[in-house]
Amino acid sequence: MTINALVFDAYGTLYDVQSVAAVTEDAFPGYGDIITQIWRIKQLEYSWLRSLMRRYEDFSVITKEALAYTIRVLGLKHDTATFERIMDKYLHLDLYPDARATLAALKGRKLAILSNGSSNMLEALVKNSGLDRVLDATISIDSRRIFKPAPDAYTLIEARLGVRPAEVLFVSSNPWDACGAKAFGLNVAWIERVTPEAMALACTKSDVVTPLTLFKALRTQMDELGVTPDHRIHALSELPGLVAHS
Amino acid sequence: MTINALVFDAYGTLYDVQSVAAVTEDAFPGYGDIITQIWRIKQLEYSWLRSLMRRYEDFSVITKEALAYTIRVLGLKHDTATFERIMDKYLHLDLYPDARATLAALKGRKLAILSNGSSNMLEALVKNSGLDRVLDATISIDSRRIFKPAPDAYTLIEARLGVRPAEVLFVSSNPWDACGAKAFGLNVAWIERVTPEAMALACTKSDVVTPLTLFKALRTQMDELGVTPDHRIHALSELPGLVAHS
Repeated sequence: MTINALVFDAYGTLYDVQSVAAVTEDAFPGYGDIITQIWRIKQLEYSWLRSLMRRYEDFSVITKEALAYTIRVLGLKHDTATFERIMDKYLHLDLYPDARATLAALKGRKLAILSNGSSNMLEALVKNSGLDRVLDATISIDSRRIFKPAPDAYTLIEARLGVRPAEVLFVSSNPWDACGAKAFGLNVAWIERVTPEAMALACTKSDVVTPLTLFKALRTQMDELGVTPDHRIHALSELPGLVAHS
Repeated sequence: MTINALVFDAYGTLYDVQSVAAVTEDAFPGYGDIITQIWRIKQLEYSWLRSLMRRYEDFSVITKEALAYTIRVLGLKHDTATFERIMDKYLHLDLYPDARATLAALKGRKLAILSNGSSNMLEALVKNSGLDRVLDATISIDSRRIFKPAPDAYTLIEARLGVRPAEVLFVSSNPWDACGAKAFGLNVAWIERVTPEAMALACTKSDVVTPLTLFKALRTQMDELGVTPDHRIHALSELPGLVAHS
């Protein structure tokens, strides 16, 4: 394959959504981690459900609705300032430790983000983390008004970068996103981040599995969706080697 | 409103999907409950994801793939006979205790099921439970090749029963399904089954919440999808009273 562009998912791939936990723990002591897990699951569910229902709203609305659900279902109460403080962290997520060096090592190829996030969210996130200086484009699906893994979302890569799907390596740690990109026709590298939770789950009796172990493990395992990504890697730092001879 | 037809969701509304747990517990002692919970979540996710990816497969395929995922992620091994035995229970799910009497009390109006299940799965299920004698139609979305909550799925009600959306009461305990039906334009009764798990979750510290408590609770709470069902009831048995004067 000739890879002329690498396109990255944002949330969970370049940026660690779990890094919200410090803020949620500060706001709701004892619930920090569980809030981030339920919040993320509902955020994804709502993006897929609203796409199917043809009731698109941008990702900042969905993210707020998922957070409101999470706080309610846990029987917690919040004020506006707390809610806004948690939401604001979504614009300042931590990069994975190897993200910056990986992008620097890939210089010379087109580099972009394709994300379900709204343009406003992504522009702030990319600027706050300094990635605006290394990326050629930050592409939100919001102009298509349908979320990944709908094929329409992935068409934005060729539309914006002018690179054909066969020359793109799409990188995501989200199994559903890796499968969606592969079904669309991109080359795909899936990042399997082998977490302690995933390891623990496979050798623990169910009565001692905590919700956190389970939630974290469920998001790191490849799904059964009838397609298989081309590459399975374990960290962003493997990418320069993977594309070196392409 | 004038209600000329009542249309029911099947899985989780008339039929208790949790009734699979006896079979999964027998096959995998200690894991019976957790298997049913992960299985159900993945079954739903795969139906939505495959719809969005335009990679439709019928619900029996999706249900098998979700079970295979569940067994793998829990680090368990299975043989073909065990797998088939678990799958077979999906054709013999228990009715909720008040389902039969409720349908009998609604006689005189058109009564139907609209389900994501495939025609083959639903015909077996309805026959095995004897509901074929009280239902006017058992409608699978499979002719549309897209799952609920896509609007196309709900159009099958008028197409098959000849009753306009404004004269239909759609009944579901699944929050996403109740929201999808309402967004489409049906009258909707959402069944909120108040489980001990949902009660427990709202007054328990997160470090003692078990995965089962959380999974069960998450499926019983109304979602934040920008629409509100017309009626919130707590059991099927409330339906005859609800439509008595319509």
